[in-house]
Amino acid sequence: MSEEIVIPSPADFHVHVRQGKMCELVTPQVAKGGVRTAYVMPNLVPPLTSTDAVLSYKAELERIDPSVQWLMTLYLHTDVTPDVVRKAADAGIYGIKVYPQGLTTNSDSGVKDYEAYYPVFQAMEENNMVLNLHGEVSSDAEKNISVLNAEVHFLSHLKKIATDFPKLRIVLEHATTAAAIEAVSSLPANVACTITAHHLYLTIDDVPSQPHHFCKPVAKEPKDRKALQDAIKSGNPKFFLGSDSAPHPLSSKIPNLTDDGSVSACAAGVYTSPILIPLVATLLESFGALDKLAGFVSENGRKFYGVPAGENQELKLKRTGNGKEDGLVKGTFKGEGVEVLPFWTGKKLGWEIVN
Amino acid sequence: MSEEIVIPSPADFHVHVRQGKMCELVTPQVAKGGVRTAYVMPNLVPPLTSTDAVLSYKAELERIDPSVQWLMTLYLHTDVTPDVVRKAADAGIYGIKVYPQGLTTNSDSGVKDYEAYYPVFQAMEENNMVLNLHGEVSSDAEKNISVLNAEVHFLSHLKKIATDFPKLRIVLEHATTAAAIEAVSSLPANVACTITAHHLYLTIDDVPSQPHHFCKPVAKEPKDRKALQDAIKSGNPKFFLGSDSAPHPLSSKIPNLTDDGSVSACAAGVYTSPILIPLVATLLESFGALDKLAGFVSENGRKFYGVPAGENQELKLKRTGNGKEDGLVKGTFKGEGVEVLPFWTGKKLGWEIVN
Repeated sequence: MSEEIVIPSPADFHVHVRQGKMCELVTPQVAKGGVRTAYVMPNLVPPLTSTDAVLSYKAELERIDPSVQWLMTLYLHTDVTPDVVRKAADAGIYGIKVYPQGLTTNSDSGVKDYEAYYPVFQAMEENNMVLNLHGEVSSDAEKNISVLNAEVHFLSHLKKIATDFPKLRIVLEHATTAAAIEAVSSLPANVACTITAHHLYLTIDDVPSQPHHFCKPVAKEPKDRKALQDAIKSGNPKFFLGSDSAPHPLSSKIPNLTDDGSVSACAAGVYTSPILIPLVATLLESFGALDKLAGFVSENGRKFYGVPAGENQELKLKRTGNGKEDGLVKGTFKGEGVEVLPFWTGKKLGWEIVN
Repeated sequence: MSEEIVIPSPADFHVHVRQGKMCELVTPQVAKGGVRTAYVMPNLVPPLTSTDAVLSYKAELERIDPSVQWLMTLYLHTDVTPDVVRKAADAGIYGIKVYPQGLTTNSDSGVKDYEAYYPVFQAMEENNMVLNLHGEVSSDAEKNISVLNAEVHFLSHLKKIATDFPKLRIVLEHATTAAAIEAVSSLPANVACTITAHHLYLTIDDVPSQPHHFCKPVAKEPKDRKALQDAIKSGNPKFFLGSDSAPHPLSSKIPNLTDDGSVSACAAGVYTSPILIPLVATLLESFGALDKLAGFVSENGRKFYGVPAGENQELKLKRTGNGKEDGLVKGTFKGEGVEVLPFWTGKKLGWEIVN
């Protein structure tokens, strides 16, 4: 087994770095996890629905960590008109993220009807912007739609949008099912798909007992996890890393008894940024795909987005040692009034960053 | 809508009342929830594998609350021989509970191979004892077996045992799937099935965000919940209440950072005893089955087990009022060094106990 790996400049094509004190805490962790280019999600409070708001956020991230290339997105909303799209494209904003209404963190302003946004999608196609889809429909007990099949039920929307806008670049974000992998594989080259690190490890068995494993979409069955792993093993360039690293304050990841006598639900999100590339290397090695690391984390996404690696941005990883503490992920990260727990806490990573 | 209901003596044919300080706290809550007869699970530490241990536990429960009729079970284990079965039957122990190894609270001593226990099942059949099955197989990623289909994969074991022991009374405990309802319905009258209160309300959507909704088996899809509701609506006497009320200390229902640097998993169990019969009435009314309340909680299980209601044990319920606090389930129960949170906390019950 090789003891060192060098890969081109890694990119994370789906990351949440939040705002305020949480942003101050987690933004520097993106580079620490080995990422040189980060595609940033716009679901802030309020959501980023104007070019000015996005550029202001980008300036904030560059202030906190100028070493990372921050690629920005808009939040699809009725405020986002074709004119807004043109202005955003001119300003260098890469994509627009679609949140189905109410499905995940800060998505109350999200989308209910995709066709209502066709003029926006057309403007995006004309201006070469990328459409980023959170691929779930809302639960509906009457139709037996739950978190388990919400992604599968979304795939008809994906196929329709891809058919109606054949030149629009579309990314199905954080795929979790064999059906999604199959759908993306069967669609033309304008449709790609991000896969998180944690969905390469978790199944539904790991979720009910552990709120720190709860995210949207929830991890599915072993056969689904295997389909994600196999997509990476195949080397198909449609599939690349989007960590969906999503920090939440530790206190909001456990149920709390509230003042009104009810019990709060835990927030959805798994936080992987500080360990991201070593974690992906560890996981890919576990299912025999370490040779696909460069493609998955460095090349495929950059090619799809048209964001080449900068000069001298290679990342060197080495195998962790055998000592008790080597590669061990330890406890929480604390900032001013905020504390977050990374995924893999208490477990060992097989790889660590050298440079 | 009627404002009062009177039903025969309610029975809960599956309840955990634990041991030590937890037992002191939760045992009196069984009667407070409207239950006159309680069928008690044997998964203590160590598990109850001898008649003497069971009788000693029964005496303890009678000391804490002599008003309840405590029906006792043994824990199936290699210590439980046909001789032990005969002794247990003579001592008035009603049944033997089978825990698949490692699947739920205190099940490390559980069963891996059902056929190895055929001599025990035969002795049970001869001595008119009831076999209580936790109906799940172990997860196995290679076979795509997870918590979602663990019950469905168990049904072949149920069918085989029922076929091989046609006179053995068998209860599939806490069914959660449409497939289980269908299997029990299709088997002869010696096979019955308990249904919990919480599985009439929860689906998988409610579980990942809320460890207080995590239990084994986990709640499944909306179509499965509907199958449980429809089984009750049908009035089929094979289906009756077994709450699986399973208290855990509040601290073990949330993830904790442990001294060795890892993150603990949350314990599996939903606690319903203190509100059980009002909760069942509220839920049955919600899906149009209030007229089946007496059958589900009082008659069907008693008939299957041969445990008639005592004299003057009717339970009277009345509709809760419209005041802000009427029917509201409030916060935790605290005992000496132990605190538990009941299901439905912060929500309102539609019915309350009069007598």
